[in-house]
Amino acid sequence: MAGTDHRREATDGPQPVVVLVRPQMGENIGTTARAMLNFGLTRLRLVAPLCGWPNAKAVNAASGASVVLNEVELFDDTRAAVADLHRVFATTARPREMVKPVFTGDAAGRELRERLTGGERVGVLFGPERTGLENDDVARADAIVSIPLNPGFASLNLAQAVLLVAYEFHRAHDTTPPLRAADALEPAAKADVDRLLADLVALLDDTSFFRSPDRRDKRIQDLEMLLHRRELQQVELQTLRGVIKGLVQRGRFRSV
Amino acid sequence: MAGTDHRREATDGPQPVVVLVRPQMGENIGTTARAMLNFGLTRLRLVAPLCGWPNAKAVNAASGASVVLNEVELFDDTRAAVADLHRVFATTARPREMVKPVFTGDAAGRELRERLTGGERVGVLFGPERTGLENDDVARADAIVSIPLNPGFASLNLAQAVLLVAYEFHRAHDTTPPLRAADALEPAAKADVDRLLADLVALLDDTSFFRSPDRRDKRIQDLEMLLHRRELQQVELQTLRGVIKGLVQRGRFRSV
Repeated sequence: MAGTDHRREATDGPQPVVVLVRPQMGENIGTTARAMLNFGLTRLRLVAPLCGWPNAKAVNAASGASVVLNEVELFDDTRAAVADLHRVFATTARPREMVKPVFTGDAAGRELRERLTGGERVGVLFGPERTGLENDDVARADAIVSIPLNPGFASLNLAQAVLLVAYEFHRAHDTTPPLRAADALEPAAKADVDRLLADLVALLDDTSFFRSPDRRDKRIQDLEMLLHRRELQQVELQTLRGVIKGLVQRGRFRSV
Repeated sequence: MAGTDHRREATDGPQPVVVLVRPQMGENIGTTARAMLNFGLTRLRLVAPLCGWPNAKAVNAASGASVVLNEVELFDDTRAAVADLHRVFATTARPREMVKPVFTGDAAGRELRERLTGGERVGVLFGPERTGLENDDVARADAIVSIPLNPGFASLNLAQAVLLVAYEFHRAHDTTPPLRAADALEPAAKADVDRLLADLVALLDDTSFFRSPDRRDKRIQDLEMLLHRRELQQVELQTLRGVIKGLVQRGRFRSV
C-alpha cells in the first residue's frame, strides 16, 4: 500500500473533524487514526496532547492509517481547536447535568450529516482517556453525544468511542441496501421450481411417499410449501435435480 | 466493582451468542469480552482457539469483563458451536460470492432482535484475526453481516467488529430517545421570554438601540426572533437578567 493516497478513499464530501482533547497515550492517537480511516474520516485535531507530539507510539499504532497523522492539526486549547467550527458535539460516557441536548449515536450521525450538507463545519470532541472532557470543554459544545451503554459496564476505549461516532456518521449517508441478495447467482423463477416439483412428484408416484390417494394432494402441497419459500437459486435447482437422480439410481441398482 | 454480578447488567431478554472461530490471540478474546459487555452481551463461544484455552492474556485483557470469560463455552469445530442455534450470521470484511444474503450492520441488528423475540436462538461468527472465516464456516450460516467500510482502508480488529455488531443489536431494541433535552433544568415558557423581552425593550427605549421610531418595531422583532428560538432555560433567563442589570449599572456609575 506504499504510495497509496488514502485521502482519495476519504468519504465523499465534507466530513466532521475529530478532536482529541488532552489525549494521554500516543498509542490511542494512533488507534484513533485507524478507527477514523475505516470510515473514511481523515480530519484529526489534537488539543495539548499529554503524551506529547510528535509521538512515535502514535505512528506505530496508526500503522497503515498514518496519513491521518500526517495531516493532524495541533492546538493549545479546546477553544482554539473549535474556533472555526459552527457546530460541536461533545462525547461523554454519562450525560451530565448541563444545558445541552443529548443525542444518541445514530441521531448524532444524522445531525452531523445534515449540518455538513447544509454547509456548516462540524466537529466532535473526545476527552482524556481516564477522565473525559472537563465542563469547560463541554461548555463549548452545542450538544452532547452519548452512546447508550450497559450501566454495569460502560468501558469503551478512545478508539472505540471514535469508531462508533465515525460508524454512525458513515451510516447516515451510506447507501448500501440493508439486505442484498446473494452475489453472482440467479434466483430461480417460480416456474422453474414448479418444473422441479412436477418432475419430483412424477418420480414419487407409485412410491410410499404418496401413501394413499387422498393424501397425495396434501403431500404435493407440503412440497410446494417447502420449495417455494426457500429462495432457491438456479444452481441450487440443479443440485437438487442431481440429488434426485442419484437417489433414483440407488434404488435402481442397489437394494436400499 | 468486586463481587458485582455483571450478569445482572446483561441485556434484558435473550441475546445472540458471539462465536469466535479459531481466534489467534488471547488478548483479542479478552478485548472481545469487554466489547460485548459494554452492550450487555455475555454469551461467548470459542471454536478451537489457536491461542489455547484457558489463556492468561485473555483474562488480563478482559479485566473487568472477565465474567464473560468465566461462562465461555469451548467447541472443537464450528459445526458443534452452532448446533443448537436456529439462525447464524457470519461476519466478513468483504462479502464473498456465495449463496448467502448480505446484511448491513443495522439490518443484522434488527434481524437478530426479531429472531430472538420470535423465540429462535441466534449466533454471530467471527473468524481468525488475519484470515477471516473459511468457506466451510460461512456455509453453516444463514446470512452474512458485512459492515460497509472504506474500501481503501478496511481494517477493524476483532474486538471492534464484535463491538459494532453488539452495538447494532443493542440499538435495535434500545428505547433511548434520539434526542433528549438538557438534563435537570426547566425550559422557559414563551411568556417568560416575552417578559424578559419587554423589560429589555423598556430599558432600551430612549437609547441609541432604537435609533429612530420607524426602526423600533423592526428591532423589537429582531430581538423576538433572537430570543424565542434559543430554547432558553429558566436559569438562563436569570443569567440574562443579571447581565442586563449589570450593563445598566455600568452606564449609571461609570462612563462607558
